[in-house]
Amino acid sequence: MQDRPLALPHVFHRAEQYFGHKPLVTAEVDGERTTTIAEWAERVRRLATVLDTLDVSADGRVGTFGWNTARHLELYMAAPCSGRVLHTLNIRLFPEQLVYIANHAEDEVVFVDRSLLPLLWPLVDRFETVRHYVVIDDGADVPVPDDPRVHDYEALLAAATPFAGDFVVADENTAAAMCYTSGTTGNPKGVVYSHRSAVLHALITLIADGAALSEHDVVMPVVPMFHANAWGLPYGCLLAGSSIVFPGPNMTPQAVARLLERHRVTVTGGVPTIWMGMLPLLADHDLTPLRTILCGGSAVPRALSESYREAIGVPMLHAWGMTETSPIATMSVLRSHHAELAEAERADLRARQGQPVPLVDLRLVDPGTGEIQPWDDVTSGEIQAAGPWIAAEYYRGEGGGAQFTEDGWLRTGDVAAVDRYGSVRLVDRTKDLIKSGGEWIGSVELENEIMAHPKVAEAAVIAIPHEKWVERPLACVVVKPGETLTAEEVIAHLEPRVAKWWLPDAVEFIDEVPKTSVGKFSKKTLREKFGGYQVPGQTPVT
Amino acid sequence: MQDRPLALPHVFHRAEQYFGHKPLVTAEVDGERTTTIAEWAERVRRLATVLDTLDVSADGRVGTFGWNTARHLELYMAAPCSGRVLHTLNIRLFPEQLVYIANHAEDEVVFVDRSLLPLLWPLVDRFETVRHYVVIDDGADVPVPDDPRVHDYEALLAAATPFAGDFVVADENTAAAMCYTSGTTGNPKGVVYSHRSAVLHALITLIADGAALSEHDVVMPVVPMFHANAWGLPYGCLLAGSSIVFPGPNMTPQAVARLLERHRVTVTGGVPTIWMGMLPLLADHDLTPLRTILCGGSAVPRALSESYREAIGVPMLHAWGMTETSPIATMSVLRSHHAELAEAERADLRARQGQPVPLVDLRLVDPGTGEIQPWDDVTSGEIQAAGPWIAAEYYRGEGGGAQFTEDGWLRTGDVAAVDRYGSVRLVDRTKDLIKSGGEWIGSVELENEIMAHPKVAEAAVIAIPHEKWVERPLACVVVKPGETLTAEEVIAHLEPRVAKWWLPDAVEFIDEVPKTSVGKFSKKTLREKFGGYQVPGQTPVT
Repeated sequence: MQDRPLALPHVFHRAEQYFGHKPLVTAEVDGERTTTIAEWAERVRRLATVLDTLDVSADGRVGTFGWNTARHLELYMAAPCSGRVLHTLNIRLFPEQLVYIANHAEDEVVFVDRSLLPLLWPLVDRFETVRHYVVIDDGADVPVPDDPRVHDYEALLAAATPFAGDFVVADENTAAAMCYTSGTTGNPKGVVYSHRSAVLHALITLIADGAALSEHDVVMPVVPMFHANAWGLPYGCLLAGSSIVFPGPNMTPQAVARLLERHRVTVTGGVPTIWMGMLPLLADHDLTPLRTILCGGSAVPRALSESYREAIGVPMLHAWGMTETSPIATMSVLRSHHAELAEAERADLRARQGQPVPLVDLRLVDPGTGEIQPWDDVTSGEIQAAGPWIAAEYYRGEGGGAQFTEDGWLRTGDVAAVDRYGSVRLVDRTKDLIKSGGEWIGSVELENEIMAHPKVAEAAVIAIPHEKWVERPLACVVVKPGETLTAEEVIAHLEPRVAKWWLPDAVEFIDEVPKTSVGKFSKKTLREKFGGYQVPGQTPVT
Repeated sequence: MQDRPLALPHVFHRAEQYFGHKPLVTAEVDGERTTTIAEWAERVRRLATVLDTLDVSADGRVGTFGWNTARHLELYMAAPCSGRVLHTLNIRLFPEQLVYIANHAEDEVVFVDRSLLPLLWPLVDRFETVRHYVVIDDGADVPVPDDPRVHDYEALLAAATPFAGDFVVADENTAAAMCYTSGTTGNPKGVVYSHRSAVLHALITLIADGAALSEHDVVMPVVPMFHANAWGLPYGCLLAGSSIVFPGPNMTPQAVARLLERHRVTVTGGVPTIWMGMLPLLADHDLTPLRTILCGGSAVPRALSESYREAIGVPMLHAWGMTETSPIATMSVLRSHHAELAEAERADLRARQGQPVPLVDLRLVDPGTGEIQPWDDVTSGEIQAAGPWIAAEYYRGEGGGAQFTEDGWLRTGDVAAVDRYGSVRLVDRTKDLIKSGGEWIGSVELENEIMAHPKVAEAAVIAIPHEKWVERPLACVVVKPGETLTAEEVIAHLEPRVAKWWLPDAVEFIDEVPKTSVGKFSKKTLREKFGGYQVPGQTPVT
């Protein structure tokens, strides 16, 4: 068989050759901009020579600090097809993390949306390796610094000669892109994607038992392009020839709903938060063409998915993964033996994380003993993952020992039970498990039970030290506006629902659960807040 | 990213782990046999140790001489997962070709269906490397030779210990399977498929804009498992978790129609001949669940596809490829810009060979000058193909110079025009083109026009030598039973339809067009038959 590399130039040339007439729509600050794949491809060819003009190293890191736009997609292709490494910076990170990441990755240039300059520019003097800032003018009324390092994106493209001929990346294991985990402990860690992993992952977004991206689709990635490659949707769309709608900077539920309706979007994807926000708007929008709502980033609440199914006939399609898994590892696709089940049972199944997609392998391992656990849907363990788009290490080998097994599997840090069909059901994060008297208490299960209380808006459960049991649960509860609730009522609500020894030793009421930059519960922040917590009436831990 | 090989053991373990409950049905000689993937997987594990017991070399060729059955699928996995090479022998080849192929491939063992023993056994003394014949008893009333080289499949499996643990193929470029082309010139040539090519090709059978194999599907491969891997359907089904129905030895249209109905088949695939035969039976069978009829091996007659669309609402899904392309290279999938076209235009489009599937690249090359030709749907040229499941050479390097370009592309030998969307329309085989006065005449186009005559059953056009023009066309025509037709009527029919200089110099009436072992027109046979043909009244070529 021919030794043809699995590399992004194939995806680029395929889109350029076969799908040049297909539209790319971006909602910019100053209105919608529509272009075609053919125009986009010509700009990608110009951008590739711009990177040469800016003297970006042959394998240099090309930072992006931008919204979801067609111009961001130009960078998604021009950087890897010209041999560079696309580095999507998360615009929601704290300044210290951004500075750390840009320096750690040794970004040589950062492409920044004009509307995001106020977030980025204050940091530039702390960026040690960035030589150029290229401003993509999205119409925002924001001053552009008068600085020799600053360039205008459109001016550079206009002055550039388009790269002629075929892009070639001969070794499919060449780095194509990188993304830093917004890890909750320690410094962010870089994950480097190869051309091979990017192409294989893009293929997986096309399979029938998955997102099933097709040339007939109009796809709107609401998930940010700096969030684990927007779950592979951009490369998948280019491979399939789907039309793409980019929401740009206005990511309010109102704006998203308007775009879904106006462009007759068929497939979209985003974290649960955006769909929660859009729920009240469903009645006012005709979303008939919508067939798939990919949802991930955190567990999809069953009630949310059911609300969508009841309102518009489309439940969430839950996918599970992480930056280290490119990110798609499992998808909760109903199977043929589920066809006859009652809708309530089908909803339970859809709320699971689902089976591994093709090419991904999972195993369930006891986090204490390291022993392989059975798939009986009861026994829980850490999920470990292997596959051609799963990380083998972090950039520059950091944190490696802890996160990767000796035989090369990724420790995902997610604790789950797996049923006999290989369907994953997450119960906790390994670091959030509470070890009480030698037995594990699942914090996520406790949280789910507390959040089922009608007066509770949010709840997070963390471990606090205990003299006798080593650790015991503390429930941090956010009460819905206008409601009142006591610790006793929370415990009384839990008593019929969980084992007696799982009952939290204390309940604290808080204003909100702190969140990470990608919207997940930050239990690290809670643990810091409640460090040295003393349960009234208990013996202090010494 | 992890260095995980793309290898068939992943497909095997995935099927075993997630789809063990799914059925495999085979229509054997003595009735239907139903098994599950779990039972099948256990037998694959036994079969792997049987190959050890039979002392098959670590990378030895394992011949199969069989129908489409679940037991053939055991060999499809046990051979490559244990490091051996599956070699599917075409049961329709001439004895001389079979002997040549088995010796050339150095098959060490041949697994043969009992019903096929009468074809195989007379040849065994000419097989130089085969040490064992394993008879798979399909219930046929055929004597089994009393010979020390002969073993019973079920007895071997029963005595074997199942291989325990995970199959491992560390290098994805390891040979997994091989198939010989039923080439129309010279000796058959071997194409060796790697684990990588087999897995990637299987993935392509899962994509939405293609066969879209799903766990919800019931798939019946009518295309033989010795015909270019049954177009990748067996490995695709195992990857997707589809149920499979195997038609076994009875491949009559009646039997196929009965199985499609009884097992509520959703996806099937086969050459045009079988669907032509089944056409009169459509009215008597409820084929409601059927959604896709893959059709390839030769061009799909537009009228056949339309008859199916009109009768059961399902036109043919035409795929083009060859043994050297694993085989899927293009698929004729309608695109979004075809949605508004009239049904007749859509039928025209479906009769094309279609766009390349992801990971396959095509180019159009003038067979004379070697220059790249434009995609204007008018200019024709040879299609050359590249991709990770396209052959780079023949086994033992035979015939290499002619069929592969210096830069590593496959010369497909098919002449086509390509439209601006990359959709292929075949017009001829390079070796069947007729070069008249320095210009090409497409034999297939002439044949199509002749076959449009209501009294013509079949027609083949070949080149005959000509003193002045070098080559001129000869039409070989089969008249429908009970009809009469003259050469003058054929020419008169063509005159308004083709350029004057394309008109055949002569018309010969024959009883039937000779066919190759896979049902294609054998123009080689016709050229032999009409070697030295002398057109009445023309100057003889010296």
